[in-house]
Amino acid sequence: MAAAHEPEVIRDKAAMRAWTRRRRAEGKAVALVPTMGYLHNGHLSLVSAAAAASAGPVAVVVSIYVNPGQFAPTEDLTTYPSDLAGDLRKLAAVFCPPDLYVRAGDGRPDAGSSGGTVSCLEQAGGGYGHETWIRVEQLEKGLCGSSRPVFFRGVATVVAKLFNIVDPDIAVLGKKDYQQWRVICRMVRDLDFAIEIIGSEIVREADCLAMSSRNVHLSREEREKDNNLKALHRTRSARKNGNPCCKCRYDDFVHSMALSISRSLVNARTAALNGNNHSQQIQDQIVQTLTEAGDSSIKQRNFRNPFDVNADCELESLVPLERVDRPAVICVATWFGKVRLIENTEIQAPP
Amino acid sequence: MAAAHEPEVIRDKAAMRAWTRRRRAEGKAVALVPTMGYLHNGHLSLVSAAAAASAGPVAVVVSIYVNPGQFAPTEDLTTYPSDLAGDLRKLAAVFCPPDLYVRAGDGRPDAGSSGGTVSCLEQAGGGYGHETWIRVEQLEKGLCGSSRPVFFRGVATVVAKLFNIVDPDIAVLGKKDYQQWRVICRMVRDLDFAIEIIGSEIVREADCLAMSSRNVHLSREEREKDNNLKALHRTRSARKNGNPCCKCRYDDFVHSMALSISRSLVNARTAALNGNNHSQQIQDQIVQTLTEAGDSSIKQRNFRNPFDVNADCELESLVPLERVDRPAVICVATWFGKVRLIENTEIQAPP
Repeated sequence: MAAAHEPEVIRDKAAMRAWTRRRRAEGKAVALVPTMGYLHNGHLSLVSAAAAASAGPVAVVVSIYVNPGQFAPTEDLTTYPSDLAGDLRKLAAVFCPPDLYVRAGDGRPDAGSSGGTVSCLEQAGGGYGHETWIRVEQLEKGLCGSSRPVFFRGVATVVAKLFNIVDPDIAVLGKKDYQQWRVICRMVRDLDFAIEIIGSEIVREADCLAMSSRNVHLSREEREKDNNLKALHRTRSARKNGNPCCKCRYDDFVHSMALSISRSLVNARTAALNGNNHSQQIQDQIVQTLTEAGDSSIKQRNFRNPFDVNADCELESLVPLERVDRPAVICVATWFGKVRLIENTEIQAPP
Repeated sequence: MAAAHEPEVIRDKAAMRAWTRRRRAEGKAVALVPTMGYLHNGHLSLVSAAAAASAGPVAVVVSIYVNPGQFAPTEDLTTYPSDLAGDLRKLAAVFCPPDLYVRAGDGRPDAGSSGGTVSCLEQAGGGYGHETWIRVEQLEKGLCGSSRPVFFRGVATVVAKLFNIVDPDIAVLGKKDYQQWRVICRMVRDLDFAIEIIGSEIVREADCLAMSSRNVHLSREEREKDNNLKALHRTRSARKNGNPCCKCRYDDFVHSMALSISRSLVNARTAALNGNNHSQQIQDQIVQTLTEAGDSSIKQRNFRNPFDVNADCELESLVPLERVDRPAVICVATWFGKVRLIENTEIQAPP
């Protein structure tokens, strides 16, 4: 979905608010697609969903902002992939704000931090910096929240900021980041935002790998830097072929490991729909599929938290279930070297 | 400030949003005065400030909602004073919403709580109830926050909900509740609400007591139920007169104690402006004034936390200061029997 002309690039809050007022005065609904940029076809499917979200005319704006509020100081804020020029070519209207967080030193005589993460800003002195956070207290804790304690706090907060700046009627989020989607839905309900949230389905590559900005790190170049993956590849090659110089191609090896996530979810879903609905059994089956793909030596090779499988969670609250006997979602997170991939599958109507 | 005609009473969210759209279409700015009802002249001064907040026409709406999200289960939610009929006579447009919190059992087959506080709802099971809270992480901790840990979380959250429902251009809050005012200012800045917050000055009774809904509990009838106050009165009478049947009137006694707060603040402010700006000295002087008014035997008589004096805090961050050498606020909270009274004084331009 390429823009036919130069995109409209909005760079500050006041201009963004004025843009929305103009579009609304033209009788259009305003739809926001919040992103961190480096857009792929998954993002563009959100833009299409936004444009089609109302029977009447819709003005769609995509925000591009790598949110320092959702990264812990140890995480990859500075290496998050970026391609603003490429992104702009794909869009019609873009909100590219400057830093959205007030830093302790901003406009104040006392020294303060600037740039970098803001996750722990409330611990810094001064008392002038950003310190307001939105907590969705149960939903933020499970699944990815257990390993990334400030993540959903940062996501909810920046999305609320974007909602207050853009003032949209509609917002579209991808259901690939399922917990994030549920956190935002709950925040909108609990804080009475007058915004319709649309969850858009997962978009996949031709080979079924779910699209993600982090897939770029699965490239040959990136992977070859990864000693864990190399070691694992050598181990598997040695076992299969009796010598360390294997016949399977390195690219194929990594890609098949990544693909095993979606394969395991398809199998789990089929099993649940056929009445094999014990969560523990479903989980064991997924782990087995992933283990076979990744070789049973993964744990010995120091892969971090190789399989974070949650079979199954209630669809809306994400509370763990013993059986898939009501609408549920199965979530999987896996580290491939330094890349964390997540996927999920909904089971809307279990037998 | 009595309304000349029947007030417009708005009872649900959709009607409230429609009201704001109509007023805005008429070219008016919309100003919100959030209250918990039981209106006194202090509240009505906020309504006047709201009406005068813009050069153009302003439509003012007062919300009346005793927020269950800011009371701890041990606090006085059910006994908070109320007089809706009396309130409505004083106003032109009122938003009186039903319960604004989704309870775990609402519309769900599983049982859940309904009514009562929601401060600790996230600890209950279910996962369907309200669980989104706004934390202003530093400002919420000090002063009143240290004795009421869920209070400012609940205030910030309900004000954000009201902002999202009413969608005002302006909101007016009283500076008597100084920390609350600063919490809301910070939330608005940090979450990018497009709302101008006006802090309205303290309004006093003819005798200088700051107006508060809780003053009603200082009535003779309420006070006579209070054994702590009676005992203190007897002690002081006995000391002064040599016998337990004192000459000072009970009403005057309690009132003079309450008034000692404002007297102590006037004295502290004068001292600071005269260059006696050591916070510890200012604090000691306030405590001395209060102690003289309340008799030095207060602590022995089991008054809870009799003097919660914070001299002095930086004006915006409420960070404690060693000296009043920059804009500051002095805050005092005192228990009189079962009533907690708070007051403050700003020092905008210390010498």
